[in-house]
Amino acid sequence: MSARVKEILSWYSSENAGTLTNLARILTHGRLGGTGRLVILPVDQGFEHGPARSFAPNPPAYDPRYHFELALTAGTSAYAAPLGFLEAAAAEYAGQVPLILKLNNHDSLSPDGEDPVTAQTGSVTDALRLGCVAIGYTIYPGSAHFQSMYEKLRELTREAKAHGLAVVVWSYPRGSGVTKEGETAIDVVAYAAQLAAQLGANIIKVKPPTDHIQQDAARKVFEGEGIAISTLAERVGHVVDSAFGARRVVIFSGGAKGADEKIFEECRGIRDGGGFGSIIGRNSFQRGRDDALTFLGKVMEIYAEGAGEARSAA
Amino acid sequence: MSARVKEILSWYSSENAGTLTNLARILTHGRLGGTGRLVILPVDQGFEHGPARSFAPNPPAYDPRYHFELALTAGTSAYAAPLGFLEAAAAEYAGQVPLILKLNNHDSLSPDGEDPVTAQTGSVTDALRLGCVAIGYTIYPGSAHFQSMYEKLRELTREAKAHGLAVVVWSYPRGSGVTKEGETAIDVVAYAAQLAAQLGANIIKVKPPTDHIQQDAARKVFEGEGIAISTLAERVGHVVDSAFGARRVVIFSGGAKGADEKIFEECRGIRDGGGFGSIIGRNSFQRGRDDALTFLGKVMEIYAEGAGEARSAA
Amino acid sequence: MSARVKEILSWYSSENAGTLTNLARILTHGRLGGTGRLVILPVDQGFEHGPARSFAPNPPAYDPRYHFELALTAGTSAYAAPLGFLEAAAAEYAGQVPLILKLNNHDSLSPDGEDPVTAQTGSVTDALRLGCVAIGYTIYPGSAHFQSMYEKLRELTREAKAHGLAVVVWSYPRGSGVTKEGETAIDVVAYAAQLAAQLGANIIKVKPPTDHIQQDAARKVFEGEGIAISTLAERVGHVVDSAFGARRVVIFSGGAKGADEKIFEECRGIRDGGGFGSIIGRNSFQRGRDDALTFLGKVMEIYAEGAGEARSAA
Amino acid sequence: MSARVKEILSWYSSENAGTLTNLARILTHGRLGGTGRLVILPVDQGFEHGPARSFAPNPPAYDPRYHFELALTAGTSAYAAPLGFLEAAAAEYAGQVPLILKLNNHDSLSPDGEDPVTAQTGSVTDALRLGCVAIGYTIYPGSAHFQSMYEKLRELTREAKAHGLAVVVWSYPRGSGVTKEGETAIDVVAYAAQLAAQLGANIIKVKPPTDHIQQDAARKVFEGEGIAISTLAERVGHVVDSAFGARRVVIFSGGAKGADEKIFEECRGIRDGGGFGSIIGRNSFQRGRDDALTFLGKVMEIYAEGAGEARSAA
Amino acid sequence: MSARVKEILSWYSSENAGTLTNLARILTHGRLGGTGRLVILPVDQGFEHGPARSFAPNPPAYDPRYHFELALTAGTSAYAAPLGFLEAAAAEYAGQVPLILKLNNHDSLSPDGEDPVTAQTGSVTDALRLGCVAIGYTIYPGSAHFQSMYEKLRELTREAKAHGLAVVVWSYPRGSGVTKEGETAIDVVAYAAQLAAQLGANIIKVKPPTDHIQQDAARKVFEGEGIAISTLAERVGHVVDSAFGARRVVIFSGGAKGADEKIFEECRGIRDGGGFGSIIGRNSFQRGRDDALTFLGKVMEIYAEGAGEARSAA
Repeated sequence: MSARVKEILSWYSSENAGTLTNLARILTHGRLGGTGRLVILPVDQGFEHGPARSFAPNPPAYDPRYHFELALTAGTSAYAAPLGFLEAAAAEYAGQVPLILKLNNHDSLSPDGEDPVTAQTGSVTDALRLGCVAIGYTIYPGSAHFQSMYEKLRELTREAKAHGLAVVVWSYPRGSGVTKEGETAIDVVAYAAQLAAQLGANIIKVKPPTDHIQQDAARKVFEGEGIAISTLAERVGHVVDSAFGARRVVIFSGGAKGADEKIFEECRGIRDGGGFGSIIGRNSFQRGRDDALTFLGKVMEIYAEGAGEARSAA
Repeated sequence: MSARVKEILSWYSSENAGTLTNLARILTHGRLGGTGRLVILPVDQGFEHGPARSFAPNPPAYDPRYHFELALTAGTSAYAAPLGFLEAAAAEYAGQVPLILKLNNHDSLSPDGEDPVTAQTGSVTDALRLGCVAIGYTIYPGSAHFQSMYEKLRELTREAKAHGLAVVVWSYPRGSGVTKEGETAIDVVAYAAQLAAQLGANIIKVKPPTDHIQQDAARKVFEGEGIAISTLAERVGHVVDSAFGARRVVIFSGGAKGADEKIFEECRGIRDGGGFGSIIGRNSFQRGRDDALTFLGKVMEIYAEGAGEARSAA
Repeated sequence: MSARVKEILSWYSSENAGTLTNLARILTHGRLGGTGRLVILPVDQGFEHGPARSFAPNPPAYDPRYHFELALTAGTSAYAAPLGFLEAAAAEYAGQVPLILKLNNHDSLSPDGEDPVTAQTGSVTDALRLGCVAIGYTIYPGSAHFQSMYEKLRELTREAKAHGLAVVVWSYPRGSGVTKEGETAIDVVAYAAQLAAQLGANIIKVKPPTDHIQQDAARKVFEGEGIAISTLAERVGHVVDSAFGARRVVIFSGGAKGADEKIFEECRGIRDGGGFGSIIGRNSFQRGRDDALTFLGKVMEIYAEGAGEARSAA
Repeated sequence: MSARVKEILSWYSSENAGTLTNLARILTHGRLGGTGRLVILPVDQGFEHGPARSFAPNPPAYDPRYHFELALTAGTSAYAAPLGFLEAAAAEYAGQVPLILKLNNHDSLSPDGEDPVTAQTGSVTDALRLGCVAIGYTIYPGSAHFQSMYEKLRELTREAKAHGLAVVVWSYPRGSGVTKEGETAIDVVAYAAQLAAQLGANIIKVKPPTDHIQQDAARKVFEGEGIAISTLAERVGHVVDSAFGARRVVIFSGGAKGADEKIFEECRGIRDGGGFGSIIGRNSFQRGRDDALTFLGKVMEIYAEGAGEARSAA
Repeated sequence: MSARVKEILSWYSSENAGTLTNLARILTHGRLGGTGRLVILPVDQGFEHGPARSFAPNPPAYDPRYHFELALTAGTSAYAAPLGFLEAAAAEYAGQVPLILKLNNHDSLSPDGEDPVTAQTGSVTDALRLGCVAIGYTIYPGSAHFQSMYEKLRELTREAKAHGLAVVVWSYPRGSGVTKEGETAIDVVAYAAQLAAQLGANIIKVKPPTDHIQQDAARKVFEGEGIAISTLAERVGHVVDSAFGARRVVIFSGGAKGADEKIFEECRGIRDGGGFGSIIGRNSFQRGRDDALTFLGKVMEIYAEGAGEARSAA
């Protein structure tokens, strides 16, 4: 096991050997195995956005097996999906790629007003029987329903870790507490990373932050302390610092389908700022397989550069 | 056991042998046994719409035994009903027709505003003691109460499968999240099928989709990707693809009583699009018995044609 | 045991021998024993309406023993009451009259707005330790709280039957889903009987229906199919048909205190329509004992006529 | 469903619809389906006698799939085996042959002195998840450990039936309470059948009885009452009468490998005495597959003769 | 994943994806990863024989970390030990070597007469929190205490598999039911392998068999059927056949410290007979580390030869 992976595991000294083992499985698998960087393939859009919006651009992706195969061939660090998608092929691909079961989901048919609510669609026991290395859970800081989401996450985290699983948290500010622009504001994203870390997340997923600042109280500090946020790398650095002084694994979402070069540039910024990697769904599976492999190969190549170096907290 | 049934069972590789056995029982019973197609008789209208609206057009249907006898004589693949209707004759007809216990129901006396709520009226243990092969459960994506319905379904699914039962999900978009026209819109019906599959359904029941598109975000994709939706067969094809790339059994409701030829035409469309069959209640039991047998015989004849051929996902 | 009682028991073929035994105890006890008809004495008005409204017209009725004695001497088929009233004398009258423990109640002090809610005031274990033959439970279809009432009834029914008790359901439409006039509308009462049957009731109590029709969708069917509802006997016939084709025991409430001849006339209508009997509280215990015995004797005499003939479903 | 199967099911009127359904599945499956007779393939010898003694005579039988295939092709009514043997292929053969999970076993390495003890090697939940129709359990009346065996059987029977499974009991007198010769004595075998029936067995397996009488008290009655036991048919008749007046399904073990004609003769005796069939392990799987199919075909042909006729209790 | 590993996983079609994943982890780890062969390092002698007898020959082995390091460096397929030994370093070596928690143990201070008894010293939850891939359990067929051992194993197996762990069974005949010589007799060892398979073991560990035959009933079959047992390869072949026709992974213990060449010769015999590998404790850790690495390297080299070929059942 590489020195960098051992270093990362050392940040989680309260976790039991089972959770450490499953974290290590993610950090040692695939093309970035051992570098301390990771790229995860997430496919929950079928549930979240509906099938046509998710899979019509690349119809073989309707088949759950497609994504296991893509994650395996591309050599991503892990594959994350809701219950049905994992159940459909977990036995067939048993032991071939680390799996993350997303335990809650939100669909876009059901109305929940401006404050998002999620439904729990899987359990820790499901994760264990499917051979997963981790559970995934989404919280929406800024939603009026924050209490039930945080409390459910805590309970699931406790149960998952007691059974040796790792915990990956999608921390996406949304709801009546934040403006649309505020959802990716640097202060808000950094805060979201901090909240996930405080709730016990092992791996934290946030959105790449803009240089917008949402909260007045925060703006005063950003300005007063001269926190640099003009480049993406600087902003990522602040987010990573905000997750326990760069001692939690923070990865960034790839967002909607966009120009490849723009994404690569973003990945370089994440990397240079000390980010640990990306979680890239739509940009991966909404194009042809060969194209996707080339694309993911390039992303992982970017992350492989300079790997093994830790960010020194500001 | 036919090659087609074995192929269908192979899609459910995460299920235990008990659930596979009960799926096989449905797929090998009755006139369509072995074809990979199925026609199910559901009689929950007494609960959902009231007795006169359900049974007055054909008074012998007030008697619970009538429906067991109809399902048996017609040779439908299974018979689905709420607790009371099954309890009333399950022992008398023990072992003669695969039974599906509908675990939740909704009546039309009780007010639930625009967002439907259901009551759980039976349990997994009831299904086992009545000798059922599956539980049935209705979800209403688009209802503000989606969270509790999805979570209850997940819990019942886990319990049912642990005891070797199969799970049939009625996925009917309804509530403040969808318009009346949207309930059968092609994007919404496909989404409903996807949601049921992600929640672990073995057999999925949806309504035949129209060519209406409800969600703007979906319309862009349907148009941009050129998803064909002008014929029913094309629309059914899209729905079936949306259920894990045609690797989940999707059947379609027969709807309100209508002209027979119109229904037969609809069945041909479902069949040609790769649908697995129909679930036909009112059109079956709201006419005289002889007429019903002729009608169901014709429906099954339509589905028997070209059976054994799988849809290849677009 | 009479052929008619055996026939009635044959309708409940999913019940265990314990539940069948307790049903038989009701059907073979008292003056109507063996006829297939039954008259039950219910005294829950102390809880539901308050003591003065209930017992001041006949003060000896304040004493719980009064009602055991009345049921025993009159020869009613059973005596139904809430926990306290049964506990007060069950030991003293042990084995002398079949008892039904009403498990939920509703008082008229507590506010529940237009949608009634009940409180569970006894348990299946209480019914067993008091030597009861059945539990009683009231549902209010049409109440916004239908879900919790139906689900609680299902759970109590499961538990009661597992312990060999029978289940008597008071199905009284009430709440924001029905108008005041609609509560006794023929379509609504028939629907209420169907719902109770679907939920597993062995004996169903409804109100005598009027010829009002509440639901437009139902009116179309009543008119289209020519369902006769002009006489009480015709309406009772439709209600009994609606309870599984006259294969569930349906009895009718006696309502508020009224002129005796009017009640006898109503009983004749119930009897002629195929109803199984009456449940008569206030009209029994709110008059002097001798008067009550004469009155109940006359009611039972009416039901004894033509007993043993089954209704043949329309 | 044949009249004879319906008649047999009518003997089990206390069972729930689930258990009746699973009994019906055995009675309607395979070549003898519908005749009221049955032949079961049991393969527990690997556990009971060891692998070489069991499978070396026909080495393909080492493979668990061999026995599923044999039961399926021969058309036996069911296949019974311990946990490991069923788990190894139940998913592969899901829904193709009724399975009976033997819940307890006894090996011949472990010392238990003259009084046999068994170990529970599977559970009711295992039977459900493997899609079985019944549990199987062996009791050894005559063993000093009778109490724990009977009590465990009762508990497993309760649990199995509550979940809709049927119960098959192997009732083999053995231990310090019976002599070796007494194990198959007519009085002892008849007693064993009675004990299994009293403990709630749905299907009872005993050994073909000899004309030896073990118990002096019994001998007096056999002689005094002139119970005919000189032919096998007469003895089988007495055993079947002893199982609730020929109202429980009693089948007979095939015993060690022997001359085919001798076995056929025995089957004719069982049939003529009113026995319901045979359970034939070693004589089936310890010969080549083609030979086994011919052999089992002949056995089932014998049982098919005169099928549908009930024994009229002496 | 190699075709051979996929083939082996296909034998376990009743297992969930979690158990398959953990089996795959063992079969793909270390120097023999992917070959379908495996060598496991077990260190339970500290508990079983005491510390001096176990570790004094190579004092660094007193330290629990020594064995993790040895397994890791040598590239064994897994490391198996009791609770304390795993707890002492599982966090430090998290994710570096597949771990098997031995759940029961037997010490040589406590008296248990001629019939061995074990104590459960760990739990399935322990295995999960320590990041193990499997539980290990020892049964002693031939012990008078067989019943409690078999039943405890079944319960732990159910729990382990429900949580996605694999199950490794040490099946060591011992006790008053077998002679000392009989413990390794070919019939007894083959029987022990069969018993473990019937109880649901995924991986079975037995001792290399001698050509002694313990049971008279078995000798007749070995001689009658001409089962070859003169070479170790022949005997191993019979043992592997006895584990479900070579469809269960069977490995052999390395026994007490002996001349290396003798052990290599034994490994060649195991390999040539279709055995899946060895589990070698004392011969590994009771010598210096460099010597041990050379020794284990040689053993794995032997098993790597001809790997990927399956035994075809006799």
